Order: sequence, then C-alpha cells, then structure tokens
Amino acid sequence: MRPLILITNDDGIQAGGIQHLMDVAQEFGDLVVMAPEHNASGLSCSLTSQQPLRVHPLEERDGRHVYTCSGTPVDCVKMAVEHFCPQKPAVVLSGINHGSNASINIVYSATMGAVLEACLDGCQAIGFSLLNHNPEADFSGCDGTVRSVLAHVLEHPLPEWTALNVNIPRGEVKGIRLCRAARARWTDSLTPRTDPLGRPYWWLTGKFVNDDPAPDTDLYALDHGYASIVPIRPDYTAEGAIPQLKDLETEHV
Amino acid sequence: MRPLILITNDDGIQAGGIQHLMDVAQEFGDLVVMAPEHNASGLSCSLTSQQPLRVHPLEERDGRHVYTCSGTPVDCVKMAVEHFCPQKPAVVLSGINHGSNASINIVYSATMGAVLEACLDGCQAIGFSLLNHNPEADFSGCDGTVRSVLAHVLEHPLPEWTALNVNIPRGEVKGIRLCRAARARWTDSLTPRTDPLGRPYWWLTGKFVNDDPAPDTDLYALDHGYASIVPIRPDYTAEGAIPQLKDLETEHV
Repeated sequence: MRPLILITNDDGIQAGGIQHLMDVAQEFGDLVVMAPEHNASGLSCSLTSQQPLRVHPLEERDGRHVYTCSGTPVDCVKMAVEHFCPQKPAVVLSGINHGSNASINIVYSATMGAVLEACLDGCQAIGFSLLNHNPEADFSGCDGTVRSVLAHVLEHPLPEWTALNVNIPRGEVKGIRLCRAARARWTDSLTPRTDPLGRPYWWLTGKFVNDDPAPDTDLYALDHGYASIVPIRPDYTAEGAIPQLKDLETEHV
Repeated sequence: MRPLILITNDDGIQAGGIQHLMDVAQEFGDLVVMAPEHNASGLSCSLTSQQPLRVHPLEERDGRHVYTCSGTPVDCVKMAVEHFCPQKPAVVLSGINHGSNASINIVYSATMGAVLEACLDGCQAIGFSLLNHNPEADFSGCDGTVRSVLAHVLEHPLPEWTALNVNIPRGEVKGIRLCRAARARWTDSLTPRTDPLGRPYWWLTGKFVNDDPAPDTDLYALDHGYASIVPIRPDYTAEGAIPQLKDLETEHV
C-alpha cells in the first residue's frame, strides 16, 4: 500500500507552490490535500473558535483527494487528520511556501503553524519554503530537496515531538544543511500613512536584520546556496534559563 | 522616573483581566496600554499584513495612556513599541488572560503571541493567565503572583532572548514554581454538526489530555495549587535533534 501523505499550505489552494508540491509528493504516496480557501499568510498557529468551519471537495480521483477549508492552516490539519484521512498520514507536508520561513519568520508563519499542529497531533511533518515571494515563482529548483527529504523521512521516522522546517534558496541548490534558526529581528515594522480623509493609519512593512552570522544557522546555509533544515518542536520552553531564574520561586506558608 | 510598562492582552480592552492588570501594574510604573478592540483569542503570533491598522485613544491621564488597535496582539506590541511608547518599555505585560496558557496552549495563545513579539523586539516580557475562562472571573487571587514576578523582573533583568509564561491557579495560591511546559495534546477537536439547510459544518471543541505527569511541568505545579512560570524563547529549534538528523545532509557536486 502506498503511504498516505497529507498536504496543506498557507497561500491557499490556488498557489503555485502547493500545486507543485502535490505533483512531486504523489511520486511517493496517495494524497489528501486540505488547504485554505484564501491566502492565510502570517496567521501563525491561529485556530478558529468563534465561527463554524466548512469544507468543500475540489478534486476526487484515485490517489488524490483535494479539499478546501474555510479555516486557518492549523484548522486544515485538525480537520483533515480527524475527519478526511482514511488512516493516520505517514507524513504531513506544508508548502511549498512563496517566501522564506527561515530564522524568526517561523514564529509568524502559518505554513509552519500547520507543521507544528501536525506534530502536536502525533504526525511526522515537514514544511517547505522557497526564498521567492513571487506568485509566479518557478518551484522546479525545489524538486531535488523535496524528494531527498521526503524519501528520507518516509524511510527513517523523525524523532518523537520533532518536525522539520526546510527552506530552499533560489537557483541551483548546492546541498542540504542541518541548522539551528538564526536569531534575527524585524525593525521599522509599521509605516505611518494618512488616508484621503486625513486620518492616520499604519501598514506592515519592516527591515529584516540578521545579528547572528554563525555558520550553524539556517540563514548562513541559505546565503551560501544550501537548503536549510531546522528540526523544530512545538514548545517554546527555554530549559537553559530555568536554573538562572530559580529565585523567582516562592512558597507561601 | 517611574519605569514604563506596556500592557496588552488578547481578550480585548474591555476584559476584566486587563483592567485588573492595569491597576496592579500601575503600583510599579507608568502605563502605555495598547489592546485589541475585540477578542483576539486563539490568534497565536498572527500579524496583519493585508490591511492597514488603526489606533484609537481611549484614556489619557497622568501615568496611564490607553489605546485600542484594530490589529492582533502582535500588531499591538509592534505598534506601541514603535509609535506610542515615549521610550523602550522596562517590561511588556500581557493578560491577565481568561483561561490557561500552560503546556501546549501557548502555541495557539495570542496573549503569549504578544509576549513572544515583545521578546523578539528586545523587550522584557511576561504573560499572565488565570485558570478561569469566566468573563466575570475574580482576578484578585492573582495579585500576589503578579506583584512578586513583576517586582523581581524590574529589579533583576531576565536573561537575553527569554520571556516568562505565568499561569495562576484558581483559589489560594500556595507559591510559585519554575517549570517546563508539559507535553499534552488536544483530541477530538472538531465536532461535526448539520446546519438548518442540511449542510455539514464543524466547530472547535476538544479534550485536553496530559500524557506528561512529571513534577517539573507547569501542569503539575498548577494541579498542586502553585502558580507556574515557564521561561520561554521565540525559537522552536529542537537543538537536541540536530545530531540525530545529520544524515539528512547532502552535498551536490
């Protein structure tokens, strides 16, 4: 039996990146696809609690069942795993995102929100992103990396509570590097403007600043033409800080 | 000069939790408050990129400047730090949330999304949550914990790239414990229903299952009547998994 592969993204079902990923992934298994109806970029691990969710079938043929969901990428994963997958997926893929999710961008990314959700749901999960925001981007340069990582994970299961954040540079890919996320930052995020009625508003922009040039980071690998893989876990705990902060403890008697 | 304290939340400016936090925090410094206009629970680290943001002043008096913002809690922090704080805040507080953000709930929480954003922006940051979803919850039981943690952080700066996730049990608080986040999970998240026109929809529900009963976890501390503090960092990297996954690396020659 071919493995079951669940696919989602945050750019919406029409995006070139998910269409490309479906074609490559189908070489490895049967697909269930559950993607947002519309662009859901920047929604992080948002879930929908105040409204009902709807699902619409889009394509039903052998080895490829495609649906859209009215919710977020996290909702898509919950929905597909609980109600639309005939068995637990062998792996959940998210992407290929139009734009980088390296470094701190993962925090805001709904592509990676879906991956973290899949990991919380006990599934193996991989997010793929190409460093090209263009809606017309050419994803064929990703194929070698996607095939290599997907084949490996299907053969050698990931450690428990661990998923992968894979970012792919433009152009020729020199290889694949295991990395940690670089500690970068966004500055000057909100540009003030004035509307036609003279009232102020602000729009998200920002400059990306990398203060962490170390060679073990994802940004370094990408800058040098390599695809980066950062192993991630759905947990923000800073274990190393616990001993330093012990004097915050109190006992009320 | 009194320290500048920036306050936000995800339940919206009208929530009892933020109103209570403002009163306690003002014992320690001057306040800038930038909160979402409406409930933004479950929005995680979402940011608003597709629409402009608006800000409305609500209260302007000595030592307390209160604004609402049309965006998410992450947007509120970016907006306040960049455009509405006269200097860098000594600390950013988020909450007091109506309901737990312990364990994996932090992943979905926009209360904690604001805290992670503040940390990424180079600010000290603390999120407070009470284990009571009731909109009419009594927050007075939180005062001892809030005062103790806030006073400590103002006097002893947190380690770099580290923020705090503070959860407070109902009733009498026995003390404060430093913890790691428990590895729990939500199951049966989406309940299927049928609308009056006979069409299916799903609504988020779910059962919380804790598979991690260890005494160093936040859920254990809370279950035993203690407030829990989990030090967090805005980084999902699973450093421990990097050596195990080295055979994913390739070199194309």
